[in-house]
Amino acid sequence: MNDVIETILNHRSIRHFEDKPLTEEQIKTIVSCAQAAATSSFIQAYSIIGVKDPVKKKKLADLAGNQEYMEKNGHFLVFCADLYRHSVIGEKEEKNVESSLESTEKFMVSLIDTALAAQNAAIAAESLGLGICFIGGIRNNLEEVKKILHIPDRVIPLFGLAIGYPSKITGQKPRLPFEHVYHEDGYEQDKEEYLQQLDDYNEVIENYYLERTDGVRKDRWTEQMAAMLEKQNRMYMKDFIQKNKLDLR
Amino acid sequence: MNDVIETILNHRSIRHFEDKPLTEEQIKTIVSCAQAAATSSFIQAYSIIGVKDPVKKKKLADLAGNQEYMEKNGHFLVFCADLYRHSVIGEKEEKNVESSLESTEKFMVSLIDTALAAQNAAIAAESLGLGICFIGGIRNNLEEVKKILHIPDRVIPLFGLAIGYPSKITGQKPRLPFEHVYHEDGYEQDKEEYLQQLDDYNEVIENYYLERTDGVRKDRWTEQMAAMLEKQNRMYMKDFIQKNKLDLR
Repeated sequence: MNDVIETILNHRSIRHFEDKPLTEEQIKTIVSCAQAAATSSFIQAYSIIGVKDPVKKKKLADLAGNQEYMEKNGHFLVFCADLYRHSVIGEKEEKNVESSLESTEKFMVSLIDTALAAQNAAIAAESLGLGICFIGGIRNNLEEVKKILHIPDRVIPLFGLAIGYPSKITGQKPRLPFEHVYHEDGYEQDKEEYLQQLDDYNEVIENYYLERTDGVRKDRWTEQMAAMLEKQNRMYMKDFIQKNKLDLR
Repeated sequence: MNDVIETILNHRSIRHFEDKPLTEEQIKTIVSCAQAAATSSFIQAYSIIGVKDPVKKKKLADLAGNQEYMEKNGHFLVFCADLYRHSVIGEKEEKNVESSLESTEKFMVSLIDTALAAQNAAIAAESLGLGICFIGGIRNNLEEVKKILHIPDRVIPLFGLAIGYPSKITGQKPRLPFEHVYHEDGYEQDKEEYLQQLDDYNEVIENYYLERTDGVRKDRWTEQMAAMLEKQNRMYMKDFIQKNKLDLR
């Protein structure tokens, strides 16, 4: 086990931060690490917006569902899938790039690129003794988020990343069994074994919540997932993405 | 600068590997690191398929455009966005989760989850002295890739990750200027400055290629991008994704 693997395996989401801003140097290091990630055909299809203005932070936190740690943290980054850059490039080079930019393939590329970069940022921050929390809640109302941050077409804010000095460390949630996630030479098809793995994992999660809440919370993973997925959430997304001239063809 | 940041900043894609397989322990460490990444609402919407069978490796390499390093490496992982698991969960828990699973929002979540996990795997591998290369080429023909790896509906192979002992180390490609990618409190809108940054970067990239090829290759980034995007590539993707019951609504 080296320092890198230790940092990665030690990840937990931090939701309570000290009111102490990151230094410019820390921000620069974290963003540079994001940029060092691999990028599909060198496309670099993302931008990162750091939010310092407390009024904007408050507005974003309200939109994401009043999450205190979106306001009180060391720094707040918004990771955006960005193909606006490439439409400017099309103009500049006088090439017709519209069909490409509107394709599902390039939409996928921009999401993957952004997430690869973001995970580097997360690991880099954690290696500096900082805590992080990804915030999907900014997708609750992307129209408003775009207005607050003056974001052009073909740029989609995907998630926030709150970074800061942890004031409360939480436990680590156990992940799905290795055998359930990792397969060799083909995706497992034995349904009985598949369901058994889910049952085993349910027990692990049930014990995790029971221990953590002194026996109050009784929750199994598959129940939790089914309840979440039964509710329809952010169903405006398809229209929103297509209005932003992405994922159209 | 700590070991983690050094590892991250030292990333380069490796395309020549020794013919030396990873140990089971190395594979387990790399996959466990992938699983330690943050996951949206704990959804864990991905699976990883390790390919060892040389016949399958050869077939995949052919589909991806005959990339030798897809056959000759230490191990080859296929990262898949996976919402099949959650449709099984819906059945198991007798909840109607179909609309959610077919939404653009959950499609995005599954892509982001998968990429966050993959980047952890990449960094973990690099920290072990291994080299990596992401392979988007497997998206050339996903129908065939799914057949070769027996992959069910609602699971999309997103990219491969070749891992191994480097036999040839390449240079690092300089990234877009920090100021072009990172903004504060809002996305930059000054078009003149924006274009100037692209011009400056073009010079950096031009010098990079000239140095690397002893003056033979003359290539600027915006030209390279415009030429790539002018060609329509993998335009079957929208149909394919929707046939797989994702991104439908």
